[in-house]
Amino acid sequence: MPNISNKGMKMPESPIRKLVPYAEDAKKRGTKVYHLNIGQPDIKTPEVALNAVRNAEIEVLEYSRSEGSEEYRTKLANYYKNRGIEVDANEIIITTGGSEALLFTLGTVADYGDEIIIPEPFYANYNGFATASGLNVVPVISSIENNFALPPIEEFEKLISDKTKAILICNPGNPTGYLYSKEEIKKLAQIAIKHNLFIIADEVYREFAYDGAEHYSILQEEGLEDYAIMIDSVSKRYSMCGARIGCLVSRNKKVMQTAMKFAQARLSPPTFAQIASEAALDTPQSYFDEVIEEYVERRDLLISELQKIEGVKVAKPKGAFYCIAELPVENADDFAQWLLEKFDLNGETIMVAPAAGFYSSDNVGLNQVRIAYVLKKENLVKAAQILNEALKAYNA
Amino acid sequence: MPNISNKGMKMPESPIRKLVPYAEDAKKRGTKVYHLNIGQPDIKTPEVALNAVRNAEIEVLEYSRSEGSEEYRTKLANYYKNRGIEVDANEIIITTGGSEALLFTLGTVADYGDEIIIPEPFYANYNGFATASGLNVVPVISSIENNFALPPIEEFEKLISDKTKAILICNPGNPTGYLYSKEEIKKLAQIAIKHNLFIIADEVYREFAYDGAEHYSILQEEGLEDYAIMIDSVSKRYSMCGARIGCLVSRNKKVMQTAMKFAQARLSPPTFAQIASEAALDTPQSYFDEVIEEYVERRDLLISELQKIEGVKVAKPKGAFYCIAELPVENADDFAQWLLEKFDLNGETIMVAPAAGFYSSDNVGLNQVRIAYVLKKENLVKAAQILNEALKAYNA
Repeated sequence: MPNISNKGMKMPESPIRKLVPYAEDAKKRGTKVYHLNIGQPDIKTPEVALNAVRNAEIEVLEYSRSEGSEEYRTKLANYYKNRGIEVDANEIIITTGGSEALLFTLGTVADYGDEIIIPEPFYANYNGFATASGLNVVPVISSIENNFALPPIEEFEKLISDKTKAILICNPGNPTGYLYSKEEIKKLAQIAIKHNLFIIADEVYREFAYDGAEHYSILQEEGLEDYAIMIDSVSKRYSMCGARIGCLVSRNKKVMQTAMKFAQARLSPPTFAQIASEAALDTPQSYFDEVIEEYVERRDLLISELQKIEGVKVAKPKGAFYCIAELPVENADDFAQWLLEKFDLNGETIMVAPAAGFYSSDNVGLNQVRIAYVLKKENLVKAAQILNEALKAYNA
Repeated sequence: MPNISNKGMKMPESPIRKLVPYAEDAKKRGTKVYHLNIGQPDIKTPEVALNAVRNAEIEVLEYSRSEGSEEYRTKLANYYKNRGIEVDANEIIITTGGSEALLFTLGTVADYGDEIIIPEPFYANYNGFATASGLNVVPVISSIENNFALPPIEEFEKLISDKTKAILICNPGNPTGYLYSKEEIKKLAQIAIKHNLFIIADEVYREFAYDGAEHYSILQEEGLEDYAIMIDSVSKRYSMCGARIGCLVSRNKKVMQTAMKFAQARLSPPTFAQIASEAALDTPQSYFDEVIEEYVERRDLLISELQKIEGVKVAKPKGAFYCIAELPVENADDFAQWLLEKFDLNGETIMVAPAAGFYSSDNVGLNQVRIAYVLKKENLVKAAQILNEALKAYNA
């Protein structure tokens, strides 16, 4: 039998999805599973987006342009302008989810063996995309004690080598819920310019900034035109995870020309989903206001419920819809699997994402889990109860 | 300004799409452009597929499973069984187009610096996917004189090194239209087993085999269970290029486990398009019969029209819907651009794909173009007239 590639062997399993077979088994046994493991909101997709697909007059479901349809990119540029981000349609490439935007970006900025600095914990699939691209992730540690704030500049500078090609941030942060301040973005800009590095900002949770805090985009920072690459997606904003539409935005022409070659090789992003995404831009502000209000209530409720549980430590998120919780267990991976395999409270259990996979450092975050507050409030209360009872049983 | 990666610099431009801006300009000048450059058929998408999306009851457009929905994979396995290919649903991973299936496959079987042998000319984007994956394409030349038949085994064996990880074929072939015989597949199987290589077969044109010839799949060949990986797509079969749904099929469990890690990192294939693709499996046989009849007529007409043009040489395709035509020009790239920039016949011109990009060898195919016969017969006749007049004008 021919060998699997080293790259394939090194590809990490997704901590968000690797326990899915255990969840399926639990469901087969009749156990109800609350999914806190994945950022799949239960929020309804805007009707305007779904109707656009229902009513689309299609005879031949054709390829679109590789960079996405002109109409969609033009409307999208307008959406950004309304949020203080001045970009043109030709500074946008539509991709198959934020995932593909990130893959194109990594291919554009770094070669086999190069390094990308990422504050950890970070979105677990960055590890997968880096491995698939032959890159090494160099983590700079942000800690739960410090509420996952940006580490000091010196910590970044210590890690920069001649292999370093970019700094990647997620803002607001998955899995931390941390929202970078304008001052923190300015600090990052300083490092990028001083050391001639790209800054890649995954801003797919832009709309999810709470407590009156304002999101400051990497593209709003002047002087970063040649350095900044922004990753975006419709998945969370419109509860359209299944569309698989994202984009890559940059004012650096060489970056755009190069990313376009990756885009052309795969022909085009999905057509139905582009129709939905373009229409979603007409979603009324009231939709977002309600959604944000709902998430703030969910967050406040979840955090207060988690804080009641003995031995649980949690940082209060300022954005997105995740939190990292430290649990009174040694191995959260084992605990998460046990929750699905061995435990139920009145026929119900929870699925969480073990946080170790959100770190690239070894042996960090072993007692942490990521919890997505994407469920109704009554279900979050139940989930916290289940966690409380489960911890008692597991530790008994 | 930070540097673009070497990989990004090396990414080839798509010969199918790189002239699009010139076509757009021609259209702006009021010139009608016949698109022979891209395999975008004008055939209608089956109503059953479009209706499934129109009528889907979706409230939240959710992620699907990373490997694709169970219902779709189960029905798809049945489709394969009806074509003599015995596979289970768990031997299928649904991907975003055949493109993604190929990327997952290359990542699974080969590492940076490894080599993949491909008979050339080959689908141009293989070059892009290989470059994106850090691999080197080693071409084995099939020639227009020999109607692009499989080169002799010795030609393959001469090229095999300890870096060789796989042989990649496209069957029926894009851009050649060549259909491999059962005997040729058996020869490839021999090489794969003897040298412990994967065989990757891109079979997206399976349905398009003409003149009573039968397609023989790599998965039908016994003894290849551990070696064979098949790439498929709904794009051409159902004229659903814009769906972006394909799949990767293999009986090798390690291949499937590894490919799944790539699949999980990007979360899921598009949901709307999976609904359409599942429904498309109910397309009646009469649809295909009509489509095949239409393509045979188009092929026969196009080939006979091309053969009438002085200095044009063309091999008769046995499948797919492309042909390679050798033109009486030195540089088909320049000619193709000239067709869009400088030429029109009564306000009409054609767009073709320069064939050099379908070769990985340097300085081969410079006087060839790929022509896709995806247009109505009357348009193909007009396109051949335009080509004839254009060649006269260009060479004058």
